[in-house]
Amino acid sequence: MTKRQIPLSRREFTKLAVTAPLLSRANPLKASASMQQNQYAGGLTDIPGIRVGHYTESLRPTGCTVVLTEAGAVAGVDVRGSAPGTSETDLLDPVKTVAKVHAVVLSGGSAFGLETAHGVMQYLEERGTGFAMGDQRVPIVPAAILYDLSLGDGKIRPGKKQGYLACKTATAGMVQEGSLGAGTGATVGKLFGLQRAMKGGIGSVSFKVGDLVVAALVAVNAVGDVRDPRSGELLAGARSQGGRELADAAEYLRTNPFGAAPASGQNSTLGVVATNARLDKVGATKVAQMSHDGYARAINPIHTSMDGDTVFALSLGEVEANLDQVGFLAAEATAQAIVRAIKTAERVSRIPTYTILKRIREGVRDR
Amino acid sequence: MTKRQIPLSRREFTKLAVTAPLLSRANPLKASASMQQNQYAGGLTDIPGIRVGHYTESLRPTGCTVVLTEAGAVAGVDVRGSAPGTSETDLLDPVKTVAKVHAVVLSGGSAFGLETAHGVMQYLEERGTGFAMGDQRVPIVPAAILYDLSLGDGKIRPGKKQGYLACKTATAGMVQEGSLGAGTGATVGKLFGLQRAMKGGIGSVSFKVGDLVVAALVAVNAVGDVRDPRSGELLAGARSQGGRELADAAEYLRTNPFGAAPASGQNSTLGVVATNARLDKVGATKVAQMSHDGYARAINPIHTSMDGDTVFALSLGEVEANLDQVGFLAAEATAQAIVRAIKTAERVSRIPTYTILKRIREGVRDR
Repeated sequence: MTKRQIPLSRREFTKLAVTAPLLSRANPLKASASMQQNQYAGGLTDIPGIRVGHYTESLRPTGCTVVLTEAGAVAGVDVRGSAPGTSETDLLDPVKTVAKVHAVVLSGGSAFGLETAHGVMQYLEERGTGFAMGDQRVPIVPAAILYDLSLGDGKIRPGKKQGYLACKTATAGMVQEGSLGAGTGATVGKLFGLQRAMKGGIGSVSFKVGDLVVAALVAVNAVGDVRDPRSGELLAGARSQGGRELADAAEYLRTNPFGAAPASGQNSTLGVVATNARLDKVGATKVAQMSHDGYARAINPIHTSMDGDTVFALSLGEVEANLDQVGFLAAEATAQAIVRAIKTAERVSRIPTYTILKRIREGVRDR
Repeated sequence: MTKRQIPLSRREFTKLAVTAPLLSRANPLKASASMQQNQYAGGLTDIPGIRVGHYTESLRPTGCTVVLTEAGAVAGVDVRGSAPGTSETDLLDPVKTVAKVHAVVLSGGSAFGLETAHGVMQYLEERGTGFAMGDQRVPIVPAAILYDLSLGDGKIRPGKKQGYLACKTATAGMVQEGSLGAGTGATVGKLFGLQRAMKGGIGSVSFKVGDLVVAALVAVNAVGDVRDPRSGELLAGARSQGGRELADAAEYLRTNPFGAAPASGQNSTLGVVATNARLDKVGATKVAQMSHDGYARAINPIHTSMDGDTVFALSLGEVEANLDQVGFLAAEATAQAIVRAIKTAERVSRIPTYTILKRIREGVRDR
């Protein structure tokens, strides 16, 4: 990109957590200087009414992440990958009756991980939260999973108990990022298989423009490579056979006939975007759709038959905002949350991270 | 992007129209040197069985473009914008019976332009082409339109006759690009309205990898700005009030609350991707979906409530190929076809082009 801004550290983000000045619309070029100032510190929890909790399994790299919206959030979803694992997504169709969800769960453990939603339902039921049906309350908890069963003992996966425990840790404080929760066993760059992949993770970013806040939380577990669309830097992806360089999957696919695909469905990038803008289900669905453009800008290839890429969109506020600007910001936040997921990922199961590969490459260059 | 390759001129493309060497999969890094060599010369007509014809209206900036596939092409479609104008798209649902189309039409003239499809049907009927129903043959001609009624007399728009005439000009030769056919009245960068927009157009690119050829033809008429995702260069978009600089719509939307949107539906980016790979309707639909990632990488914002963004995908061959690679290449070709549309656009109705603005900016810098 033309503007090469240096990504800020988490601490620097916090320092800059100030409201973007309301610049004159007549002078759009003046906006440039304040570019980073509109990036908020805490990620998804910058939206009032959201708590985020991670459960990270200690026995093998897997886990789950819960986004609690106990007062209810208007929700939409868009599933663009061709190998999804989801539950309670049909009710999010704008034609269906229920408008609000009480939580969204992202989980490792492949389809087994959908069980985590039942732990979240148990937690919410104990607190009297749910969609009122006579004297009963049924918590509405859509869920989506990613595949991480190849790391360690695949019989160990998040279930009902782990979903419940994730709720117990939920906080409105700064979202924890890296190799935890649903991102614990996440990997990227699997065009040539897991042995040449790199570590994915979970990241979160928010943007504030005037009163409007739009945030994203993304667990990145893609077959494709990850690039920062702002700087153009290829961050993580399929490595060369020696393992010390990025192979550049897109470059490879542009020039080489590609045969049999890696085993189907061992991926999925899962996102939750949220805003304090007032949206109906149609609007939330549109925002979920536009958020996939953030996937496209940060991950390549994406939305393949091997990915179950899904985005949920949540509206928890009453701020009047232009729907297209909300969708635009959701896509931007999604792309930057993906970048954060890669940059904060920690080493797990000997799979190298962005930080490790960077250090290796710089070392090689110093010699 | 990290690799800053200089885009080749049309003539240079032709010189390099050689088959990409079948590089060893074991050494993906070696692929880089041949990157441009896999870009073919003629665009969509590099797929055997396709002819492309443009009708360009002389009375005001509008027109239509027909993609003829008279022997039939397996087809899919994906409509991602929220203000589309289309016909015969429902039958492309994989559940529906008809599998092959005989042409696809892209037209200016807003919903009135859908009439062009009937001229194409007339042309095909005269040649005995169509879906056999007893002794009748019904040509299957899906169509999508873009909005260009604000340029000149909006009562003048492509209709049945113009669709017929576009067929008469159709050729399997090199696809003509720029401000013609469906791209004649196309504009981009309309965040602050048409008076600060720039000229869009129609462009086409193809990629060849081994025996596989994947191509795209795109008429670019977006509310968003256009960037070359390979170089990172912002090519065209909303201009500053003085008109001599790009305002950077994304930068603006990241920092400024945006009020009322420009009048809905005055946009739409329309694409046809095609391949010689054997695909069924499900595969063609998947390729159409993945092609929208090319829109996301080259245009921002995209898929808004003000765009009717649509991609048709056509399969005309028997080459065995990995579906995800076809979809990946379709997205790449789509993004580069968008770049070509901007770079080849010619001035119409005093709306500046990429070339003009570049010259102005370079002039300012020289002083």
